[in-house]
Amino acid sequence: MFGARCVRLVLRRCSSAPCPKHAATAKLLRVREALEIRDPSGQDIKVQGWVRSVRSQKDVLFVHMNDGSSLENLQVVADPELGPSELTFGSSVEVQGKLIKSPHKRQNVELAAENIRVVGPCDVLAFPLKYKTHHPLDYLRQFPHVRCRTNSLGALLRLRSEATAAIHSFFKDNGYLHVHTPIITSNDCEGAGEIFQVESANEKRVPGENPHFFDVPAFLTVSGQLHLEVMAGAFSKVYTFGPTFRADDSQSRRHLAEFYMVEAELSFAESLQDIMQAMEDLFKKVTDTVLSSCPRDVELFHKHVAPGQEAKVERMLKNRFITMSYTEAIEVLKRAHQEFVYKPEWGRDLQTEHERYLVQHCGEIPVFVFNYPYDLKPFYMRDNEDGPQHTVSAVDLLVPAVGELCGGSLREDRPDFLQSRLQRLGLEDTYQWYIDLRRFGSTPHGGFGMGFERYLRCILGVENIKDVIPFPRFSHSCVL
Amino acid sequence: MFGARCVRLVLRRCSSAPCPKHAATAKLLRVREALEIRDPSGQDIKVQGWVRSVRSQKDVLFVHMNDGSSLENLQVVADPELGPSELTFGSSVEVQGKLIKSPHKRQNVELAAENIRVVGPCDVLAFPLKYKTHHPLDYLRQFPHVRCRTNSLGALLRLRSEATAAIHSFFKDNGYLHVHTPIITSNDCEGAGEIFQVESANEKRVPGENPHFFDVPAFLTVSGQLHLEVMAGAFSKVYTFGPTFRADDSQSRRHLAEFYMVEAELSFAESLQDIMQAMEDLFKKVTDTVLSSCPRDVELFHKHVAPGQEAKVERMLKNRFITMSYTEAIEVLKRAHQEFVYKPEWGRDLQTEHERYLVQHCGEIPVFVFNYPYDLKPFYMRDNEDGPQHTVSAVDLLVPAVGELCGGSLREDRPDFLQSRLQRLGLEDTYQWYIDLRRFGSTPHGGFGMGFERYLRCILGVENIKDVIPFPRFSHSCVL
Repeated sequence: MFGARCVRLVLRRCSSAPCPKHAATAKLLRVREALEIRDPSGQDIKVQGWVRSVRSQKDVLFVHMNDGSSLENLQVVADPELGPSELTFGSSVEVQGKLIKSPHKRQNVELAAENIRVVGPCDVLAFPLKYKTHHPLDYLRQFPHVRCRTNSLGALLRLRSEATAAIHSFFKDNGYLHVHTPIITSNDCEGAGEIFQVESANEKRVPGENPHFFDVPAFLTVSGQLHLEVMAGAFSKVYTFGPTFRADDSQSRRHLAEFYMVEAELSFAESLQDIMQAMEDLFKKVTDTVLSSCPRDVELFHKHVAPGQEAKVERMLKNRFITMSYTEAIEVLKRAHQEFVYKPEWGRDLQTEHERYLVQHCGEIPVFVFNYPYDLKPFYMRDNEDGPQHTVSAVDLLVPAVGELCGGSLREDRPDFLQSRLQRLGLEDTYQWYIDLRRFGSTPHGGFGMGFERYLRCILGVENIKDVIPFPRFSHSCVL
Repeated sequence: MFGARCVRLVLRRCSSAPCPKHAATAKLLRVREALEIRDPSGQDIKVQGWVRSVRSQKDVLFVHMNDGSSLENLQVVADPELGPSELTFGSSVEVQGKLIKSPHKRQNVELAAENIRVVGPCDVLAFPLKYKTHHPLDYLRQFPHVRCRTNSLGALLRLRSEATAAIHSFFKDNGYLHVHTPIITSNDCEGAGEIFQVESANEKRVPGENPHFFDVPAFLTVSGQLHLEVMAGAFSKVYTFGPTFRADDSQSRRHLAEFYMVEAELSFAESLQDIMQAMEDLFKKVTDTVLSSCPRDVELFHKHVAPGQEAKVERMLKNRFITMSYTEAIEVLKRAHQEFVYKPEWGRDLQTEHERYLVQHCGEIPVFVFNYPYDLKPFYMRDNEDGPQHTVSAVDLLVPAVGELCGGSLREDRPDFLQSRLQRLGLEDTYQWYIDLRRFGSTPHGGFGMGFERYLRCILGVENIKDVIPFPRFSHSCVL
């Protein structure tokens, strides 16, 4: 321990005036950059990262190092004498040497080390990750502070970052404005009970004073939709991509208390077709981008975590999504030879088992179910004024394995319709501002939301939603 | 009112089967796209948006319309008979016609209308925005649901969207991984008291049961730093860009309860120089991008909201930022001829008045102040082991008008130093996971955070922070 500290103290002194020993020409490269060099010419480079394996043979020492820039490791070859005793699995190192063509088929290049410095040793006995051991995802979930150093979570988080960028690009390229909708809100968009309340933790508030920091009860957002509608009334096409919250007590593989949503809102959208098209375009474009820009990370999931997933994703990408009205969907379910726990019935919500069946019925191709019963849906959805089966212009996108991936609707843009519905709910005063949007140059409009973690599960085939977010929060658990 | 509804009902019927009257060839364009056509050839187009002005002359009707895609309006010229009675300021319209060269110098193109349809009328008496009226920013703050339809907030929100994209691009281009750090956390990063607590609003919890949804008290994040450090230990360079929260009771022009922070963390950063370089690069690159991609929106602020701001921003961009130790800064302040409310003294925090003076002293060029007193700073900052004036490797970036824009530090990477400091604070158990990061391949590392709203204020010269965020939340106020 003391030895390592000395090394680092010396190091620190080096940092202001470059250390003469390996100042000179060694160019600092990321592992990914080194691996991408097709024809190495023995250039002098320096790489920093963490040791994934050490194998000492009589004449040669092999070290695999990784810095998180790619799934693949960089192989370091060295004289065994160059390897300090603290060079173990998990330690952080800086290696300087010549980048050369590798004689092995498994890699194109390798680093012939001239200097290996252990920057920080690893207490291998206490380290929850073990050398040459496959750690199942549920084991890793116990260690949110180190699981990102495994191949699977490493690949996942690179893909998550790439998908995030692809989503922003999709909307920018299609003329949408990005909006930071608020996290704390005095609205309760869906009228659902499962929300989080926010209050100052400061106990110094004077008794008798208003007990609320914001003067009114405030909640964590369940959706940015209403705020996006404000913005769609100025910028025509807008989106948001941020955290949303549900105080859902269920401990399932499908629920988180904090999760990410992509939401878009389009003014002048006159039919559900516009909304469905936007959803399908988003799904296909982002997936294409992710598959082509991170093929190795995707492969890890499609080959090892969820074998067979590649073909499933391909089927989703190459087929036009199917559309089916809610009424048709109920008929399909009623005709099914399958026994459902919940009997399908017009006017009732579709359950997960129903969603699964419908996707199967459609050949595992994503399916839009549209025009839901009026009484099932929130006040802001557009009344279809039909009958006797009264519906609203709502649409859900169902996908294989996951079920509901997106939900959207046309919004009630007619002030008189909206006002009378809110009046019946006793919410007319609360939502006066929302009614006002319809009095000052209203437009037919609509939008949708896509659960980002559900999206990642869908394209990668990951079963548990806790494995596709860096720090999962759910009932009874908020670790770190 | 009834008339308008009829129009829209007809419209809706048109939407499934295209309306024969203007089906044909009219291509739907955004206002921005129409304005960008240099040599219009009388092509048949359709534009949707909101009316910014209507001026009827004897033979010709002029309408300016805007759809939020640009600051500039599209001028529509029409036979006065084409203008329906509901064509007023604030109404939403769809105009179809020929795009032609404009005879006027103020614009390159104009739309010779063949059809003008009012999609949604505007109740002009109730509408808080008035025709041909300049609305001051503090007036607009009362109407968060319509203020985005003014030139100033429109420009601001486009710039905010553009700056957001530029920040993501900067980090992606420089090899950083994007991480969604958690919003709800059981940590209280800064040890500060002014935080928000989160609890389920569901009142059904059984008495005697654990009163917390997450079993432990949970808070809204004040910084993603500690979680970023986890990720930097796997991916080397990481960043996050999301909402952060302070339950700050002050009602100043500088504080929000919910604001956005860009935070980055760099493994293997061995000196503060690395952190300062990253801050300066981020500031300059993002500002360059925003200025060049939205010149008209920037101009609105630099000419009309904050005259003289253009030269100030230019000075910041073309000069290398200045560096000065905290100790030097105190000496500069002590030598100042200015009377300060708070007497500058080694060991005391810099106040806003001090920050302002230092920036002025440096010729209104941003200045890094580094190496702050050990006792002023939180536990995670790296001990410089100096004396008798004991400091840590912390750095703040001060900029004109705003004061502190960024704060950063090297982090204490030595397990023994960190452990003994946490022990003295009685936090050893709470932060065992954080100490662990130093036991499993620690690296020298550091990072910084930049307040996004402060950044926007700094480059645009906007005085009140409530005017640079779509829906401001602050003490006593959470509107919508």
